[in-house]
Amino acid sequence: MPDVDALNRAIRTEHPAAWRCMSALGRRLFFPVGVSSQSAEARGCRLNATIGQLTDDHGQPMPLPVMASAIDGLTDAEVFLYPPQGGRRDLRAAWRDQLQARFPDTPLSLPLVTAGLTNGLSIAAELFTDEDTDVLIPLPCWGNYQHIFRTYRGANLIDYPCMLRDPWRLNIEGLAAQIQKLERKAMLVLNVPGNPTGYTPTVSEAEALVDAIAASPVPLVVVCDDAYRGMIWEPDLIDDGLFGLLAARTDPERVLVAKVDGATKELFFFGGRVGFLTFAAAGAAADALAEKAKACTRATISAMPAPSQALVMRALGSPELAAQRKVIRDMLQARYRVLRDEIAARGLPHWPFNSAFFALLDAGDRAESARQALLAQGVGVISFPAVGGLRLSYSTTPADQIPALVEAVAAQLA
Amino acid sequence: MPDVDALNRAIRTEHPAAWRCMSALGRRLFFPVGVSSQSAEARGCRLNATIGQLTDDHGQPMPLPVMASAIDGLTDAEVFLYPPQGGRRDLRAAWRDQLQARFPDTPLSLPLVTAGLTNGLSIAAELFTDEDTDVLIPLPCWGNYQHIFRTYRGANLIDYPCMLRDPWRLNIEGLAAQIQKLERKAMLVLNVPGNPTGYTPTVSEAEALVDAIAASPVPLVVVCDDAYRGMIWEPDLIDDGLFGLLAARTDPERVLVAKVDGATKELFFFGGRVGFLTFAAAGAAADALAEKAKACTRATISAMPAPSQALVMRALGSPELAAQRKVIRDMLQARYRVLRDEIAARGLPHWPFNSAFFALLDAGDRAESARQALLAQGVGVISFPAVGGLRLSYSTTPADQIPALVEAVAAQLA
Repeated sequence: MPDVDALNRAIRTEHPAAWRCMSALGRRLFFPVGVSSQSAEARGCRLNATIGQLTDDHGQPMPLPVMASAIDGLTDAEVFLYPPQGGRRDLRAAWRDQLQARFPDTPLSLPLVTAGLTNGLSIAAELFTDEDTDVLIPLPCWGNYQHIFRTYRGANLIDYPCMLRDPWRLNIEGLAAQIQKLERKAMLVLNVPGNPTGYTPTVSEAEALVDAIAASPVPLVVVCDDAYRGMIWEPDLIDDGLFGLLAARTDPERVLVAKVDGATKELFFFGGRVGFLTFAAAGAAADALAEKAKACTRATISAMPAPSQALVMRALGSPELAAQRKVIRDMLQARYRVLRDEIAARGLPHWPFNSAFFALLDAGDRAESARQALLAQGVGVISFPAVGGLRLSYSTTPADQIPALVEAVAAQLA
Repeated sequence: MPDVDALNRAIRTEHPAAWRCMSALGRRLFFPVGVSSQSAEARGCRLNATIGQLTDDHGQPMPLPVMASAIDGLTDAEVFLYPPQGGRRDLRAAWRDQLQARFPDTPLSLPLVTAGLTNGLSIAAELFTDEDTDVLIPLPCWGNYQHIFRTYRGANLIDYPCMLRDPWRLNIEGLAAQIQKLERKAMLVLNVPGNPTGYTPTVSEAEALVDAIAASPVPLVVVCDDAYRGMIWEPDLIDDGLFGLLAARTDPERVLVAKVDGATKELFFFGGRVGFLTFAAAGAAADALAEKAKACTRATISAMPAPSQALVMRALGSPELAAQRKVIRDMLQARYRVLRDEIAARGLPHWPFNSAFFALLDAGDRAESARQALLAQGVGVISFPAVGGLRLSYSTTPADQIPALVEAVAAQLA
């Protein structure tokens, strides 16, 4: 029998907050011993008859040539055979190395490869939420949060308005009050840079936010959804989310900090579905939390896609990566500036935005009707009726079309 | 609000068995309207600012060149941008077409693309099991069944010994008796060809098995795990699993039949993680079941990996596919024959095997100790102590090494 008790003991002892927040499912999860561990033991055997995947008479993969011929610069083995459970070891290590370089003082679990960022959020939800959990999510937010946490896991969602008006500012006081009202274990989802607001806090706002979170009266899991990490277009903003600040300032007796990030936006690999889930935890608790998360993927997906992992690994290992990312980021920043200036020139009321791919315009109760009217003119935007907002994304809009976009929206809202 | 009531009404009315088996989670699931549906409405707009993925000034993807250069024969768009929720439409249609050609009289839901076969089994578990569900699984079976159904979902597992000895035969009477004992909604997992037995029923065994299942006294979801579909090495066996037979002979008032299959083994694409989940259901019930399954993936993974889907689509569209598959299948069949003949020549007691990648030898209570002893000699095999079996896989063992493999195992068991 795999020792689920040992996992639970490590977490209970070394990260009390994680234990107190853990769901019934989380507490019973362990990574099962079986064919995969027996196969691991047989690695290097002269005769290896352990595993149900196919190799040729020299131990090499036998892909269909029609597939293999489409891949150039990746080996057949890394594309066509099973990658390890939990993700390629070199990829997990590479991701941890770059996190550790950015957060040198934060103890990190080995990042688990997840099937995109949704999967990282979903695993956090599986491990730490149930019908007795309050989950604080920003308003407005990515709509899938409601689906992941409320529809799927049955958690009790509490919206916290993330911005206040007149003047526009981060609603730190509101979040602080909401946290103080909590009466049972909870989860807090942070999304910096934010979707749909396109907002990233300043350094001083971030400090105050972390103070408010660190004062939680209940055991709390904080999930940093860092999907848009690094897409920062103005000075004086925090440039790497809240994860490191939170990990440094919160007490494992009360708060567990998790980071969900990945290649989807950071490496512009939307189709790849390569995300990572990392906990700010040390020692045996870190290992046990990573093992619980891997057990979650074993029951739901098993291995993660090999071609996608191979492509991400290839990118991370390339000396050209930084220069190639810069070309794309520069183009995005140029689009941002055109949009910012066009909106300002027309005096359109809008939420503060300074990062990610978005601007959110004030449309009041006409948000959905304006979207429909724009659609009829061949202009696609997204409405967020709950906050009376129209979201304009510049990630798919060329800079030279942005003036026409803003003009069409302005005419509609006039 | 998306109309979860309409989905539930369609299932309740048109597939009563599916409704009666559905879990609380399954009943509350719907595919959420939001950014993705608003984006779908904006397709074709002259200005499209709806979605948070990146395109260049001509609407084309902007992959990192370091990744793009590794792909040859696939378009950047099909590798680097988001594929549709639920899977590429052309891929889902192509998979349905080939299923429909093989099962011309079976009504089929549109196959949902899943993240490998584990994900298909997991979605079936999410939709149809909970702590009040009995799940019948074969003994011996792939160990992950226990993890997916019991550890993860909390279902009550009931093992049914799949074979009887003296003489060896499929345990149809045992399964029939087990089904008759059921007192509440249940799930039955079938795995043909079987892992770890490597056994596929004869045509007459299959008929009797279907009779036993059709006589279920309770609402039943039958999940056909067809991972090894088509890997059949002897005549007179059923060559395409039990899905078609079951769908033809069972009553939607009492039984829902689901099929889990995919590219992992059928197309020898182990690393791809492309599976499919298909229901034998018609009309609105088929659509509602496919929608519930898609809602499940939206909350847990969101889109499926694009490079893998592109490679599978490329294979399915190739006129060379059949010939390329035959080369690999012929090599597997040749290995099978060497193994079969070596085991027979040495008179080693074994479970019947005729398909998939495996033979299961009788090792009694020495199964695990024999595995360990073989490991010390550099020979890797898998033990199944619950049935006193040693599994030899010929998918990774060259034909010319099989005699040495059998000799080493025989010496150990002598």
